[in-house]
Amino acid sequence: MEKITVSLGERSYPITIAAGLFKDPASFWPLKAGDNTMLVTNQTLEPLYLDALSARLTAAGVKVDQVILPDGEQYKTLAVMDEVFTALLQKPHGRDTTLIALGGGVIGDLTGFAAASYQRGVRFIQVPTTLLSQVDSSVGGKTAVNHPLGKNMIGAFYQPASVVIDTDCLRTLPPRELASGLAEVIKYGIILDGDFFCWLEQNLDALLALDEQAIAWCIRRCCELKAEVVAADEHEHGQRALLNLGHTFGHAIEAHMGYGNWLHGEAVAAGMVMAARTAQRLGQFSEADTQRIIALLQRAGLPVYGPQSMQAEDYLPHMLRDKKVLAGELRLVLPLALGRSEVRSGVAHDMVLAAINDCQKP
Amino acid sequence: MEKITVSLGERSYPITIAAGLFKDPASFWPLKAGDNTMLVTNQTLEPLYLDALSARLTAAGVKVDQVILPDGEQYKTLAVMDEVFTALLQKPHGRDTTLIALGGGVIGDLTGFAAASYQRGVRFIQVPTTLLSQVDSSVGGKTAVNHPLGKNMIGAFYQPASVVIDTDCLRTLPPRELASGLAEVIKYGIILDGDFFCWLEQNLDALLALDEQAIAWCIRRCCELKAEVVAADEHEHGQRALLNLGHTFGHAIEAHMGYGNWLHGEAVAAGMVMAARTAQRLGQFSEADTQRIIALLQRAGLPVYGPQSMQAEDYLPHMLRDKKVLAGELRLVLPLALGRSEVRSGVAHDMVLAAINDCQKP
Repeated sequence: MEKITVSLGERSYPITIAAGLFKDPASFWPLKAGDNTMLVTNQTLEPLYLDALSARLTAAGVKVDQVILPDGEQYKTLAVMDEVFTALLQKPHGRDTTLIALGGGVIGDLTGFAAASYQRGVRFIQVPTTLLSQVDSSVGGKTAVNHPLGKNMIGAFYQPASVVIDTDCLRTLPPRELASGLAEVIKYGIILDGDFFCWLEQNLDALLALDEQAIAWCIRRCCELKAEVVAADEHEHGQRALLNLGHTFGHAIEAHMGYGNWLHGEAVAAGMVMAARTAQRLGQFSEADTQRIIALLQRAGLPVYGPQSMQAEDYLPHMLRDKKVLAGELRLVLPLALGRSEVRSGVAHDMVLAAINDCQKP
Repeated sequence: MEKITVSLGERSYPITIAAGLFKDPASFWPLKAGDNTMLVTNQTLEPLYLDALSARLTAAGVKVDQVILPDGEQYKTLAVMDEVFTALLQKPHGRDTTLIALGGGVIGDLTGFAAASYQRGVRFIQVPTTLLSQVDSSVGGKTAVNHPLGKNMIGAFYQPASVVIDTDCLRTLPPRELASGLAEVIKYGIILDGDFFCWLEQNLDALLALDEQAIAWCIRRCCELKAEVVAADEHEHGQRALLNLGHTFGHAIEAHMGYGNWLHGEAVAAGMVMAARTAQRLGQFSEADTQRIIALLQRAGLPVYGPQSMQAEDYLPHMLRDKKVLAGELRLVLPLALGRSEVRSGVAHDMVLAAINDCQKP
């Protein structure tokens, strides 16, 4: 079992990573007998996990209510979040309840924001079931829902009480979702840890084959890197923005194509190549390193070109709604080397458009 | 000019109180030339204040966009808040924007929650225009919207950057709204300050006549009392709950009657009498003091009975959704004397029902 702590003073919390965690109710710390919970999950995960998990928690003396949401990024909305509030109020659940987010990034982000907002804040536990949410969205307290005009535009910084990662969940994950998670994994290598990037080049096949040791170590390393960044900059005043490599471009793809058509990791993968191309045009990144990124993404089954139906000009309006924009000016995360990156303002829009065009499928 | 500070460390902020503040853009600290703002108000206030205020801020170099919402408690919803997000994203406004809440409690609570949630948090300024919001809801950082199953059930603790109270606004306030604000004013006397209760008995006529000095001093005293409570207990783990005297009963009236039919202060007025009757039945409050409360509320033009169409049994389901409920148990704010109160758990439901029946119109 791997265990990490996200250090945020009195709001610190543990991340527990292992195969088979769901079989032991003690994994769900800090829940204890007598606690009230509302388990939020989606229609895809319900038949896979809900009854068994609910029965084990109930046997441990925890009261479990549940709300089942439709599955997909297009349901990460205020209106769907309202269904969680309705379920909570119908019982009714008080301020002493605990929300359990059983699912991927959509369930985790939406449930986290619901926990932040219900009665102005109740406890919640992240139980991420996709690789993407295990290595990224479940850790660090960014919660949100989407708006038709921008992804994750409505939300809160709100930390969970714990994160419970059962790596067995990855065995039921569709291959496209696994690849989407690998995009965020590769991101950590590019922005923060060149050795980890090399390790990924050597171990990608083991990860794709869900080798238990490789997967557990990989998730642990990503969570460690993220925990360090979050502990240093919880509210993204500085370094935390690095975690958004590829996301400004990627969010534009997701918004333009309609949420759910391009998976988040797929859009980020293409976006990371666009960021690398921008960095190349600025003379701060090499063609050889861009090719290493492209090769690794392709081995993981991820796109390295933007959508064919999207022109370079289509990106900018979405990119200018990015949360990193300050005083109307775009700020981009750009690689400096494999393992090192920066947040950069003032890149000419022409150069950004040219870099996007570099990533049009020939 | 009266000036108070709400002391919350680096999130401390000033409350400025005077007639004519809107005429001086410097009142709107910390806004400065070059800042972007989104002014949120309602259709009733728009013709009264919007053009003049917007022109003055614009002349001072502040960029002002605006969104006009329908007027009324029934519009304090997630769906209406989404209109604010749409307006912000259409421009688009970045994380460096400032929301200005020009209005009563509905506008202030909704705009505050929008500011807490937009891009996970942007700056906002409270500009309360009703007595109720000037003495209560604009100070202390409680923001929220309603849910059909409960008032203020969805929100955040999120402090404004400053509170700007122009007492001239009260001159355009309908008498019923002025009375509604006086309910919260009288509340402070009952829960925290017996001398202030006596002052109100002596000065109520001056307040009803909008005597400038009396009004300014009254608002200052209420804000001082509230600022002290909030500084000691920002997130309502203890003493802050005292500010909810009458609110558990009152919220039940508002929810049952449909938001907007009974004004908040009207429901709180009847609720405070119910709390006093409960305290009497517990042997901790005198009939004479209940009569002083009733007399003062009646002089202010406020109801002292519950709605005739509402039975005692109708209150409980709403009251059990109150945010003070812990482990399924009701917690009530009850007076101990004029100027002293407590939060009490475990009052028998029968006794609460009997106290509500004490307040049925004969």
